[in-house]
Amino acid sequence: METKKNRQFRLAARPVGLPKDTDWESTVEPIPSPEAGEIVVEVVYLSLDPAMRGWMNEGRSYIPPVGIGEVMRAVGIGRVIASAAPGFAIGDYVTGPFGIQQFARIKASDVQKVDPNLAPLTTQLAVLGLPGMTAYFGLLDVGKPQPGNTVVVSGAAGAVGAVVGQIAKIKGCRAVGIAGGADKCKWLVDELGFDAAIDYKNEDVAKRLRAECPKGLDVYFDNVGGDILDAALANLARRARVVICGAVSQYNNTTPMRGPKNYLSLLVHRARMEGFVVFDYADRYAEAAKEMLGWIKAGKLVSREHVVQGIESFPRQLLKLFSGENTGKLVLQVGDER
Amino acid sequence: METKKNRQFRLAARPVGLPKDTDWESTVEPIPSPEAGEIVVEVVYLSLDPAMRGWMNEGRSYIPPVGIGEVMRAVGIGRVIASAAPGFAIGDYVTGPFGIQQFARIKASDVQKVDPNLAPLTTQLAVLGLPGMTAYFGLLDVGKPQPGNTVVVSGAAGAVGAVVGQIAKIKGCRAVGIAGGADKCKWLVDELGFDAAIDYKNEDVAKRLRAECPKGLDVYFDNVGGDILDAALANLARRARVVICGAVSQYNNTTPMRGPKNYLSLLVHRARMEGFVVFDYADRYAEAAKEMLGWIKAGKLVSREHVVQGIESFPRQLLKLFSGENTGKLVLQVGDER
Repeated sequence: METKKNRQFRLAARPVGLPKDTDWESTVEPIPSPEAGEIVVEVVYLSLDPAMRGWMNEGRSYIPPVGIGEVMRAVGIGRVIASAAPGFAIGDYVTGPFGIQQFARIKASDVQKVDPNLAPLTTQLAVLGLPGMTAYFGLLDVGKPQPGNTVVVSGAAGAVGAVVGQIAKIKGCRAVGIAGGADKCKWLVDELGFDAAIDYKNEDVAKRLRAECPKGLDVYFDNVGGDILDAALANLARRARVVICGAVSQYNNTTPMRGPKNYLSLLVHRARMEGFVVFDYADRYAEAAKEMLGWIKAGKLVSREHVVQGIESFPRQLLKLFSGENTGKLVLQVGDER
Repeated sequence: METKKNRQFRLAARPVGLPKDTDWESTVEPIPSPEAGEIVVEVVYLSLDPAMRGWMNEGRSYIPPVGIGEVMRAVGIGRVIASAAPGFAIGDYVTGPFGIQQFARIKASDVQKVDPNLAPLTTQLAVLGLPGMTAYFGLLDVGKPQPGNTVVVSGAAGAVGAVVGQIAKIKGCRAVGIAGGADKCKWLVDELGFDAAIDYKNEDVAKRLRAECPKGLDVYFDNVGGDILDAALANLARRARVVICGAVSQYNNTTPMRGPKNYLSLLVHRARMEGFVVFDYADRYAEAAKEMLGWIKAGKLVSREHVVQGIESFPRQLLKLFSGENTGKLVLQVGDER
C-alpha cells in the first residue's frame, strides 16, 4: 500500500507587504482519521482568492484571522476517503474550508456535497462557487442594476469581475470592464461580451471612463480600490451604487490604506457606496447556483478557470493574484480527479 | 427721502485655502427697480453656511459655482419694498437666494413668502430653513434611524448637526454629538438633550466613540470628513448608514482632499455611505417645516441662532464657520426687522 502523507502550508508569520516564502511553514503529517461526525477528504482543487491576503492580517474583520501556526484557510473540492458521518460515503465529492493541504479532517456539517456531473469541478469553485456567489449577490442585491444602466467593474478579468460583467449583460446593462493588459481586455470584449474594456496598465482610466460612460456610471463594482476607485467616483451618474467588494490594490500596502479622495462625489451625485460579505447570502447560494448553471447551459455565461498545479507551489501561485497574472478563477490542483 | 444704497459683496477671485479679504470685492450700487414679474427685497437676515465655500470653487458640483464678479450666493429673509409681481405687496416677508447684499431684485417665482408670526425670522433661516431641512431629510430619509439605534453626528453644535441630534432623540435613538470645545459639548448635553458629546479638540474621538457606542454606530451623520469620519468608520455597527452631508474640515485644503482610509469598514460591517443634496426634497419642505414647528412648540426641538451684525463684516463672519466660532446657525443681520 502506498504510504501517502498530508502536505500542508501553515501561516508562519504575518506578512508585511506581499507574502514572502518565510511567511509560510510547509509541514507534512500523517493522513488523519475521522472521529464521530467527521469525514476525511482528499483535496483535489483549492480556490486561491485575493481575500486570503486579508485573512493573514491580525485584527477585526468580517472573519477571524488565520492564527500563526494554523493551516492556511482555503476553500476546496475533494473526495471523501474516510467517513464517520451518516450520509457521507467514500468517493463522494464535497466542498468546504479544507485549507491549504492535501487531506482534510473536517466536520461533515461544515461541507456541502458536490455533484461532479453538474459541471466541471473547477467551475464549481468558480462561477458556481464563492466567486460566482460574490458576483451574483454583490451585483444584483447591492448594485441593483436596471436595464439600460451602465455597469463598470474593476478586476474585470478576475474570478468575480468576469462574472459581474456577464451578469450585467444578461440583465440588459452596458458592461465596461477595467483590467490589466491588452490580452485580458480583448478576452473581456471578444469572449465574454463586455461592451468595452479599459486597460489600466496602458490607458488613462478616468479619461476612458468618461468616453465609454458619457452619462456616468450607474453601478460601479469595485474589486481594487486606490486610483481606479477614485476615477470611478469622479464619473458617477446620479443615484449611482458603488459596490465595495474588495481592494486588491491595497492589500499588500506597507503604508496606510489609501482612502478614496473623491468620496464627496457621493454627495454631488446622491450616490451610495456599500459593502457586503457573501457569507450573508448562504441560504440563497443554491438558488443563485441554479440560475447561473442555467445561464452557463444557455451559453450566456462563461466560466474560465486558470488551473495551476502542485501544492508545493502554493506560495508563488498565490502571488499571481496580486501581480494580475491570472485570467479567470485561479485554482490550485493538489490531487487527481478520478 | 433717505438715499439708501445697496452694498454688496462680489467674488473677486477663487480662494486658495481660507477665503481672504482680497477674494472679495465690496461694491455699492443704487437700489434696483423691479421689472415685470420681479420684486425688490430689503434683506434683513442672510444665512452663512459652510457650503458657501464649495460654491466659490470652479468645477462641477451639485450647483454651478458663483462666477467671478457675481454677487456671492446666499439665502436670506427680507421685506418686499417694490413689486411688479402679482400677489406680492410691499411689506411682505419673503425668503430666497438674495445673495450677500442689502437689496435684491429677484423674480417672484424664485422666492417663498414667510409668515413672520410663525416663528422668529432667524429661526426660519435655521431649523425651519435649509439647515433644518438638511438635518431632517438627511437623517430620516438617508440615515433611516430606528428606535434604539445609536446616532452620531459631527459638527454637532452647528446649524445642521444640532438638529440632527435632537431629531434622533425625538425618534427614540441614543444621540452622540462630536463638537469642538467643552462649552459646545456642555450645551449639547445640557440644553439639547444629547446623551453624550465628544470634544474633538481635547479628546480622543475614536476612543470616546468606542466607549459611548459599545455596540457601534448605527447611523453616522458626517458634516466634517477627515480624521473624524475615519474614527466613525472604525466603529460602525453592522448595516450602519453613513450619511455624507459635508466635509467642512476639508473645504479649505490647499492639498488634495483626504479620503476616508477606513472605508473598507463598509465591507466588514455591510454598511453604506450615502450622499444627498437637500434641494432634491424641495417638494417636501413644507411638510417637514410643519412637523419641526410642532416639535419646537412642544419644547422638543430648540433652534439656536448665532446672529452677527453688519454686511461690511461678511468676510470675517464667514470664517467663523471654519474656525468653529459659531454655536448654532450663523446668521448675518444686514437690515432691521420692523
